[in-house]
Amino acid sequence: MIVDAPCVGPSVAEILTSHESGTGSPTRTAARVADAIAARGDDGTWLSTVPREALLAAAAEIEGRPGARTLPLYGVPFGVKDSIDVAGVPTTLSCPDYAYVADATAPAVRRLLDAGALYVGKTNLDQFATGLNGTRTPHTIPRSVYGGEMISGGSSSGSALAVALGQVPFAVATDTAGSGRVPAALNGVIGFKPSRGLISTVGLVPACKSLDCISVMAGSIDDVDRVLDVMVARDDGDAWSRDRGPRYDGERVRVGVPPVGELEFFGDTDMQAAHLGFRNQLDRSHGCTEVSLAPFLAAGALLYQGPWVAERLVEFADFLAERPDSIHPVVREILRSGEKYTAVDAFAALQRLQELKATVARVWEHVDVLAVPTIGTTFTVDEVLADPIGCNTKLGHYTHFGNLLDLNGVAVPLGVTAGGRPYSAMLLGPALSDDTVLQVAATLLDEPRTAPLGSTDHSARIEESA
Amino acid sequence: MIVDAPCVGPSVAEILTSHESGTGSPTRTAARVADAIAARGDDGTWLSTVPREALLAAAAEIEGRPGARTLPLYGVPFGVKDSIDVAGVPTTLSCPDYAYVADATAPAVRRLLDAGALYVGKTNLDQFATGLNGTRTPHTIPRSVYGGEMISGGSSSGSALAVALGQVPFAVATDTAGSGRVPAALNGVIGFKPSRGLISTVGLVPACKSLDCISVMAGSIDDVDRVLDVMVARDDGDAWSRDRGPRYDGERVRVGVPPVGELEFFGDTDMQAAHLGFRNQLDRSHGCTEVSLAPFLAAGALLYQGPWVAERLVEFADFLAERPDSIHPVVREILRSGEKYTAVDAFAALQRLQELKATVARVWEHVDVLAVPTIGTTFTVDEVLADPIGCNTKLGHYTHFGNLLDLNGVAVPLGVTAGGRPYSAMLLGPALSDDTVLQVAATLLDEPRTAPLGSTDHSARIEESA
Repeated sequence: MIVDAPCVGPSVAEILTSHESGTGSPTRTAARVADAIAARGDDGTWLSTVPREALLAAAAEIEGRPGARTLPLYGVPFGVKDSIDVAGVPTTLSCPDYAYVADATAPAVRRLLDAGALYVGKTNLDQFATGLNGTRTPHTIPRSVYGGEMISGGSSSGSALAVALGQVPFAVATDTAGSGRVPAALNGVIGFKPSRGLISTVGLVPACKSLDCISVMAGSIDDVDRVLDVMVARDDGDAWSRDRGPRYDGERVRVGVPPVGELEFFGDTDMQAAHLGFRNQLDRSHGCTEVSLAPFLAAGALLYQGPWVAERLVEFADFLAERPDSIHPVVREILRSGEKYTAVDAFAALQRLQELKATVARVWEHVDVLAVPTIGTTFTVDEVLADPIGCNTKLGHYTHFGNLLDLNGVAVPLGVTAGGRPYSAMLLGPALSDDTVLQVAATLLDEPRTAPLGSTDHSARIEESA
Repeated sequence: MIVDAPCVGPSVAEILTSHESGTGSPTRTAARVADAIAARGDDGTWLSTVPREALLAAAAEIEGRPGARTLPLYGVPFGVKDSIDVAGVPTTLSCPDYAYVADATAPAVRRLLDAGALYVGKTNLDQFATGLNGTRTPHTIPRSVYGGEMISGGSSSGSALAVALGQVPFAVATDTAGSGRVPAALNGVIGFKPSRGLISTVGLVPACKSLDCISVMAGSIDDVDRVLDVMVARDDGDAWSRDRGPRYDGERVRVGVPPVGELEFFGDTDMQAAHLGFRNQLDRSHGCTEVSLAPFLAAGALLYQGPWVAERLVEFADFLAERPDSIHPVVREILRSGEKYTAVDAFAALQRLQELKATVARVWEHVDVLAVPTIGTTFTVDEVLADPIGCNTKLGHYTHFGNLLDLNGVAVPLGVTAGGRPYSAMLLGPALSDDTVLQVAATLLDEPRTAPLGSTDHSARIEESA
């Protein structure tokens, strides 16, 4: 049933080693990437790519930079979700009539370029980053690498696929309600949504500006670490910008899990069995504490069954009014649903959210990390097209609450179910506990972390991997 | 021109000393308070008071408690703004048709009672705590103790008067946009609005729940300190509850002031002269740094020229719909103005506020405390009645932004202008810098603080003053 094995490509570390040792080079990597993308044809992964010759030229330019070989991402190719600006390239949000050519590169992407990374192209997304399923695009609807006509997930569909297909070792995605974690789960890659404000969102077209995060898709925690070390930076242009929290301190991490009866798999018994198997393993390795999901799920319900959908209209109301026919019908319906909420609704929901935040803050007095499924089940493209809102709500069951509650979270790929569907666990922690959450993820993947405690010395890392 | 001198009554410390030494007693204090209130007749200060015999009985009950003499507020009388619940007493919000008899006492008040304080009664307010002027009440409109038919200020009009008249040494007030600072300024007392969440707001009928603070009116910083030490406590029932910040560390406090050209006195040259005199003195004592008020004022404009007025409808929309004629006409007009805002307006304003918060956060990298006028000018009752919204906006010029920007602030009385109007400086600091702000206020008032560094040992304090 598996059509493509996920993460078949080399990791960041492997690419750096190859570039350092001379067995490869940025231009040879660029050629491999261009070939790999071309070989797939239009599978809905990319919305635009740097043409082959220009990509090789860009790689050659990196090679020619003085001191380039010590750059932390020297010649490492990457994709960017097409809601984030790259100067001179159209930002389309999967809406051709909305598209504009960006005149500046988002600082988060700029930092990658400055670190020697090779920009490959823009990846597909659910239009306006509104969706968790990947079908809400006027372009080719991508499919999960696990085949079976299963959805790619979204909204960062193309970013997940580009990594899962081995075309790039990492991709820049976004996550407002799960857009960076659901497609990761559905394609067997890691999707890490940092705490709000660690990565600048300047140059990202907002979905819900107060909740949006730029996130990272990669094949290993080590790659996530390397990319984060480059992307994380204060930015006075981002009103939510804040400093990174402390590094993992080496102490035992207290892991919470919901009571089994609170878990929801929407009838997917294979997924349930896979998750319960993971839970047993997690309990043996970490000794879990039970924690009710109720306040988390209540916060999630505020997001899309409440007034936050109106926040999307801060950005898109004018376009919705002027060009309604240019918008994907499902996205248009969702945006219009935001028009019915009053400011009183918004303030009432904000007050309710504050109550839930206070309740959840007390949960973190007892556990450091919460482990849940990333997705309870998945769907075929046809199933989603037949019930676009219903399926999407199910996909977001475990992700909708994360941004509202100011959590960080990582989707960790754990293989396939008995029926061949991808399953994934999500680890969540309170704001600024990012490094602890990633530490647990690395443990689950049996992955030693190369820079566990406070190291941000990029050159030292490259020497290690050289 | 001065009709009553403010703060003619004994302080908390003096009352405690008298009760400790036996020169006075809680029952004798109760009798004095009852007499003082009765002597004024209905001047619009109190909406309800404990009847004389019951007050004396309550004082006697305090005297009879085992160990009562070591209580930090043993027999100290106080008033409570009539938007805060005291069990068995009507909470009216100056709206008789809205009134209900509270079945529980607000935790903040409960802590005062447990500390031996003597509850005297409920104080007048602008209806629904909506106003800064004191005229929006169906009861007697109170006047400033400085006479001249000047307004008392509001919304905590009665709390300020009860202290200024010397009837009680402190009163419980609230502050959502200046309601605890403006009337303090207009009656020559101290009005301290702590950082959001230090004092539980459970049992307070919300104005804007996300911004409301319970505040303290008193005649000295020492009294504020004593009352705060009792009232401040975490409360899991208050979703905004948080721990007190650090005590003042003894370091030099960096004081910021706006450029003179940014100050606004609405043509009140006496007030301007008084404030500039204070500024010169402050510069000599502290060496001030200039800081632009622009981002602060921009935040203030969001409050009442923006969607936050809608937050009042979370509490009052049903009453407005069902009993519009029961509402003061000006308050009704303000509440109705909240109906026009959409959730999109609310989220756009929240995004803008976040930007202003980020800008203001950078101000606090350079200064610890900001000094501004509490009020730029004041008005007579007739002036306010003739232009109720316009005058009110002017009264809130320096206070509207404080709660939105998560500041703490204290109004410090500085005497009267050449024309006999009260003037007051306001010191503001970022969230949880309360003790530093109060330290500067104590310096301005030439008041040594009895427990500057970390002491919360109430009994030790009482021995000092005994």
